[in-house]
Amino acid sequence: MCRFLAYSGVPVWLDSLLIEPESSLISQSMAAREAKTVVNGDGCGIGWYGERGEPGIYRGILPAWSDRNLTSLCHQLRSSMFLAHVRSATTGGVSMANCHPFGFGRHLFMHNGQIGGYEKVKRAIEAYIPDEVYCSRAGNGDSEAIFLIAAGYGLDRDPVGALRKTLQECLDIVVNSGIDQPIRFSAIHADGEKLHAFRWSSDARPPTLYWRNVGQGIAIASEPFGTGAEKWEIIPANSVATIVGANITFEPFNPIAQPQARMIA
Amino acid sequence: MCRFLAYSGVPVWLDSLLIEPESSLISQSMAAREAKTVVNGDGCGIGWYGERGEPGIYRGILPAWSDRNLTSLCHQLRSSMFLAHVRSATTGGVSMANCHPFGFGRHLFMHNGQIGGYEKVKRAIEAYIPDEVYCSRAGNGDSEAIFLIAAGYGLDRDPVGALRKTLQECLDIVVNSGIDQPIRFSAIHADGEKLHAFRWSSDARPPTLYWRNVGQGIAIASEPFGTGAEKWEIIPANSVATIVGANITFEPFNPIAQPQARMIA
Amino acid sequence: MCRFLAYSGVPVWLDSLLIEPESSLISQSMAAREAKTVVNGDGCGIGWYGERGEPGIYRGILPAWSDRNLTSLCHQLRSSMFLAHVRSATTGGVSMANCHPFGFGRHLFMHNGQIGGYEKVKRAIEAYIPDEVYCSRAGNGDSEAIFLIAAGYGLDRDPVGALRKTLQECLDIVVNSGIDQPIRFSAIHADGEKLHAFRWSSDARPPTLYWRNVGQGIAIASEPFGTGAEKWEIIPANSVATIVGANITFEPFNPIAQPQARMIA
Amino acid sequence: MCRFLAYSGVPVWLDSLLIEPESSLISQSMAAREAKTVVNGDGCGIGWYGERGEPGIYRGILPAWSDRNLTSLCHQLRSSMFLAHVRSATTGGVSMANCHPFGFGRHLFMHNGQIGGYEKVKRAIEAYIPDEVYCSRAGNGDSEAIFLIAAGYGLDRDPVGALRKTLQECLDIVVNSGIDQPIRFSAIHADGEKLHAFRWSSDARPPTLYWRNVGQGIAIASEPFGTGAEKWEIIPANSVATIVGANITFEPFNPIAQPQARMIA
Repeated sequence: MCRFLAYSGVPVWLDSLLIEPESSLISQSMAAREAKTVVNGDGCGIGWYGERGEPGIYRGILPAWSDRNLTSLCHQLRSSMFLAHVRSATTGGVSMANCHPFGFGRHLFMHNGQIGGYEKVKRAIEAYIPDEVYCSRAGNGDSEAIFLIAAGYGLDRDPVGALRKTLQECLDIVVNSGIDQPIRFSAIHADGEKLHAFRWSSDARPPTLYWRNVGQGIAIASEPFGTGAEKWEIIPANSVATIVGANITFEPFNPIAQPQARMIA
Repeated sequence: MCRFLAYSGVPVWLDSLLIEPESSLISQSMAAREAKTVVNGDGCGIGWYGERGEPGIYRGILPAWSDRNLTSLCHQLRSSMFLAHVRSATTGGVSMANCHPFGFGRHLFMHNGQIGGYEKVKRAIEAYIPDEVYCSRAGNGDSEAIFLIAAGYGLDRDPVGALRKTLQECLDIVVNSGIDQPIRFSAIHADGEKLHAFRWSSDARPPTLYWRNVGQGIAIASEPFGTGAEKWEIIPANSVATIVGANITFEPFNPIAQPQARMIA
Repeated sequence: MCRFLAYSGVPVWLDSLLIEPESSLISQSMAAREAKTVVNGDGCGIGWYGERGEPGIYRGILPAWSDRNLTSLCHQLRSSMFLAHVRSATTGGVSMANCHPFGFGRHLFMHNGQIGGYEKVKRAIEAYIPDEVYCSRAGNGDSEAIFLIAAGYGLDRDPVGALRKTLQECLDIVVNSGIDQPIRFSAIHADGEKLHAFRWSSDARPPTLYWRNVGQGIAIASEPFGTGAEKWEIIPANSVATIVGANITFEPFNPIAQPQARMIA
Repeated sequence: MCRFLAYSGVPVWLDSLLIEPESSLISQSMAAREAKTVVNGDGCGIGWYGERGEPGIYRGILPAWSDRNLTSLCHQLRSSMFLAHVRSATTGGVSMANCHPFGFGRHLFMHNGQIGGYEKVKRAIEAYIPDEVYCSRAGNGDSEAIFLIAAGYGLDRDPVGALRKTLQECLDIVVNSGIDQPIRFSAIHADGEKLHAFRWSSDARPPTLYWRNVGQGIAIASEPFGTGAEKWEIIPANSVATIVGANITFEPFNPIAQPQARMIA
């Protein structure tokens, strides 16, 4: 299980959220409190939106705790929307190409979870990556495959729908292959304007995902960080949170069931 | 264009061929004389057969000239059959998974050349990688794809036939996709007993490949190394050399044409 | 010999100078035209001034031409003063700690050249690094040593004087050790307000250093880049250029001779 | 606190001790049971004696658990004397040069522990590294400094005496600098013939060090590995074990006290 953090709101320095807080993501790279694997040392990455059309991406194979470039970048960068990820490899080796976040045009994506039995269905799943983005695939893990399939379903138009459809296809493949392991999916999609935080699993155990107000923005995190006094709220299972600026709304997200009506937080 | 070297014969220290000679492979990593790109700084690798069932593989993303692990290993290892490669990336990013040689069971493979227009036909070519080896694919370049397809055609039974069939399929795909770039293929396959050196191209310009006797063995190299006094012979275009111990034989190898009769050197 | 580029002036995107021009620094990493070694593949780095008190630094051990993080950062970062360096190792192994630019508080430094016979005088030279900065030494090359010695002589007050004094001490040590190799020193010091470009050698062959106006700023480079139509001027031997904003002035810089009067460009 | 393992005896495959056992060193890299820091993910290394005059050394900055080169090497290498180390950085950044084991001629050295307050006394301690080996210093940590000082005191003649004298000097420096942190020193020195395992601390808490018979050899480890049924014995505090082949003897080792008479195990 990986750990991640995302932010949307008034621009803040990345280190104010990623490094300075107690139990920050960087320290979670060495000892996550709620994760199944205590070490998230298989690389790290950040993606951020600035003035340019496409987001910046920095990824490295060293553990976050010893990556000095990461520290310096987090100190220099100020952004109104950014993602950060520390990896514990499940599928896909330790390589820069397998580190999150992944980028595709204006889109960023990162994932905590996995497609159960991925090695058995890798090819069947990759078949859903459309031709025009197939060569963008640089790694060999499940998370990047999910993202590129969704890219084919239209991240520009309807990212939630694209990811729902992607996970439906993946679940069909997994189930039809006789695999009894679940798909687990806590994930962030961002495009510079909107940020979506998904928490879903095909079984009853979606990976944790929390949110709270931070100044004039909203932070989403795999597990709470800070002194313990902050008011973190868990994102309900089988839902997606949509953050625009510092406003958050929730709606159901369950690729198994039918699309449902929107709820306002 | 990459550079490589292979050896078969009485066991020798790897550094006696890879480091000590003038214009050695390590120095070729910085300034190859006959290659189109003068720098082969996108990683390096060695594969060697020892006492174990499977060969050892060391690969790294640093240029060979600054890789101290490589230097130490070449000094320690003595082998009757080994491969070494310095990379100049064509398809596939700079990553350990894209470095040569590739391993599959007892088999090692390395390649200098490329599948023309690979980005357009990547998926079509990968479709020929059989299911049972598909998850062994760790990188995203053309060379590894060729090797894994050949693995499906039976490297254990008939490696020359498997690679011929593989290249026929690849060429069909390339031609049928309207790509006018050639497939170029100087390559080594080894299994610990036999070593095959291929030199073929779908156009008239197969990458160079030389051989010569070295003590009680045979060296194959992308370009000659040494003082200049050594007697290197070029491997004919569209042929494959088979080396068992220190014996070398040649036969035609042309995936375009029909299989032909064997020639003895 | 390494290659470097520095800029001061109206904020520009880093990639507009480092990547987009013909014969850019990134392409110089593979084939520098005027350098003694054609490959500068032993790592790379950038340092830039933004809104924070200290500059940002990114350094990596991959060759610049294959470093995707570098490409992404150069696209995202806009700065009124920045430094970039591609390394060809002379002293000090290939490691992040030996990559330029080096940082110390607000100060950045990068160097092309070397202290002749450094291995013989390393300890004697390091003795001039003051106690309070000695633990900042992370690498083992001559360039970082020069910078840290100068830090002890007061980079805040008088960086030109501090580097002059440092090179005088180094030259004394080299000469007194009976070494007949020169000290060569093309280098950049910056503090966010001023940028100094030094070109000096204890023999008659200081490494090349050029400057030209670029929009509303000034670029300094080891060798010209661009289409060839740009008007580059060489910085005279044994002088230091001081750039504030887009204004450049020159004065003699010769650690051998006595301090001299200031010249205005 | 790092973790390490050393072996002397009839040649064995490295993976039989480093990878195959339960709670092996590789798994200890992620979750050491007795160490103060649970993650030893700041690089790894092995050193081994083969047929050549000097030992082989492989070191890498990735955590051991994800280093495929390490896995392949451990499978291929068989040796009568080898060292392996997984690092948790205390002093010195994460770099290949700071990874253990360190090599000097025929000598290998690795260390678990630290010189208390090292940053304050780094220069004073480095002053004891003799001129003729000073340029061999590639990293900036305390362990390498200890090794190179000992090299100056004669590792060829009397390695135990050389390390005792080294630690005496270091302790004098630490105490005279008013530092109240201890020197802790669990360490291995080897020269291909003899292997010494030290366990000492200037306070009452030397890092753990165990030994047991393994087939026709002896393994030394920071903490026991295996099923739990093996009979590990702790090496007494303030002593040094000398292993020649599969014979182990103990004698007191206390750089504070006077040299003492030899005890036989």
